[in-house]
Amino acid sequence: MKNVFIHPLALVETDDIGAGTRVWAYTHILPGARVGRNCNIGEHCFLEGGATVGDNVTIKNGNMLWAGLVIESGVFVGPQVLFTNDVYPRSPRLPQARHRYDDTSWLVPTLIEEGASLGAGAIVLPGVRVGRFAMVAAGAVATKDVPPYALLKGNPGRVGGWVCQCGRPLSFDTARAICAFCGLSFQKNSEGVQSCREQESRQLSPSRL
Amino acid sequence: MKNVFIHPLALVETDDIGAGTRVWAYTHILPGARVGRNCNIGEHCFLEGGATVGDNVTIKNGNMLWAGLVIESGVFVGPQVLFTNDVYPRSPRLPQARHRYDDTSWLVPTLIEEGASLGAGAIVLPGVRVGRFAMVAAGAVATKDVPPYALLKGNPGRVGGWVCQCGRPLSFDTARAICAFCGLSFQKNSEGVQSCREQESRQLSPSRL
Amino acid sequence: MKNVFIHPLALVETDDIGAGTRVWAYTHILPGARVGRNCNIGEHCFLEGGATVGDNVTIKNGNMLWAGLVIESGVFVGPQVLFTNDVYPRSPRLPQARHRYDDTSWLVPTLIEEGASLGAGAIVLPGVRVGRFAMVAAGAVATKDVPPYALLKGNPGRVGGWVCQCGRPLSFDTARAICAFCGLSFQKNSEGVQSCREQESRQLSPSRL
Repeated sequence: MKNVFIHPLALVETDDIGAGTRVWAYTHILPGARVGRNCNIGEHCFLEGGATVGDNVTIKNGNMLWAGLVIESGVFVGPQVLFTNDVYPRSPRLPQARHRYDDTSWLVPTLIEEGASLGAGAIVLPGVRVGRFAMVAAGAVATKDVPPYALLKGNPGRVGGWVCQCGRPLSFDTARAICAFCGLSFQKNSEGVQSCREQESRQLSPSRL
Repeated sequence: MKNVFIHPLALVETDDIGAGTRVWAYTHILPGARVGRNCNIGEHCFLEGGATVGDNVTIKNGNMLWAGLVIESGVFVGPQVLFTNDVYPRSPRLPQARHRYDDTSWLVPTLIEEGASLGAGAIVLPGVRVGRFAMVAAGAVATKDVPPYALLKGNPGRVGGWVCQCGRPLSFDTARAICAFCGLSFQKNSEGVQSCREQESRQLSPSRL
Repeated sequence: MKNVFIHPLALVETDDIGAGTRVWAYTHILPGARVGRNCNIGEHCFLEGGATVGDNVTIKNGNMLWAGLVIESGVFVGPQVLFTNDVYPRSPRLPQARHRYDDTSWLVPTLIEEGASLGAGAIVLPGVRVGRFAMVAAGAVATKDVPPYALLKGNPGRVGGWVCQCGRPLSFDTARAICAFCGLSFQKNSEGVQSCREQESRQLSPSRL
């Protein structure tokens, strides 16, 4: 691997790491895990085979990325965020549950879309999709899909607002909002929130013609 | 120890580990901790002297098992579950609290019974007993005893349903339920939920004759 | 450093640690972090440059102390407490947010005052001040300042009682309470709770004369 920094106290057992990525101390990356370019993988992390990380992702310390998890580009994973992949977890060594783990049909995938943020200690339940640029607040529990640009709070998590691509809160006095910081404009309707640029490109797409 | 796998980056300072058990990287097991047979102890764990683990237990990454904790056989401990053993925690180095830590009378034991599951990031308060085959949901906080077969959710945790020994939800339309997956039948009454097999063996036990 | 114990599996890159302090396995302390005397820093911890810890502090396992965090003397930090320092977290590698991380103006400091306790898995949001001898319960989320001597519970955290310097609950039947365990007396008024000794010294202070 070219231009990949691996701390001497990390253990990296894959070659599938993109250029410019750094892996810090006491972190273990297993064979079969994939990490993109220009990422930062903090300390005390664990990446299992079958976990996939895009480009420009920041993963803070103490995170475990299990098989079935896809983290798209530009995502922020705060400290000790908890991912899950089993809806009915039992010890696979328990006689009453053992048969369920004979194959991997128990494994439910999770998707964190482009540019989303997961705050410190957030919990993402199995099968949940966290939408583009959504923000799950520290300690919030995502029990179902999080819409794009939504701010999720509490346990169980509820949508408590909307955020811009740059991370700042959006204020929808009408169906439109403009980010006071980066100037991006947004439209809110029954389908949720989208940036006006996304809306334009959707209207111009062949499927709408 | 025969047939025990210890990852080269783990630190194990006890011989009290049963056959077939595996201990993974960056995990530290102290003298005085006891682990049964056929367990899996994940990475970045810490087992203190005085912690006890039964057979066939699965302990995912990032768990700390303190003195006073007993985990019975067949239990699932999800990632970064939090155990506690002090009701009035202060720094033992704080002059105003130091005397309380002169002996171990502050230490409150915790019990996780056979076959129970603790979801990712669940928190178990000091002195709590999690009953047989109960399931504490990801992020739930067990502030008091959890009945056998109960599904505990939220912060503070509340019983929100019941689960089978195999982990699947039970639906009590009447006082009886049969698991659609493994066929085990259950009875629900003022004492809680028990499997009909347990009920039979209790009715036949000498103390009831 | 004199009389500092560093476990052979820890990585300590600062000399700024006081006498009598112990640092345990798999913990990484970076250049620029400062730790006082007679502290205990548990396993799997991470202290970033710019984090400051007073004397007689107990830090249990799995804690990450970020830049901008000040922990005063005598504090108890339970296992896997989560500190934060960014109100609008995004990956600094995300093009839409990158400019915000060009300097450190995004960084919001956090203060844990003398003798406070943070329970297992507690979360402290950026900019929050946890007052003297306050206690944040296990799993509670401190979204705003916690008054001195307050017991904070839940997500979001709410004041659910008061505690003595020694950690035991206080019962205010009137505006006064006396700790049944250590005998310290307290006064409660519109400004909150303070020990009578503090009140006396405040009344005698030059600013009040």
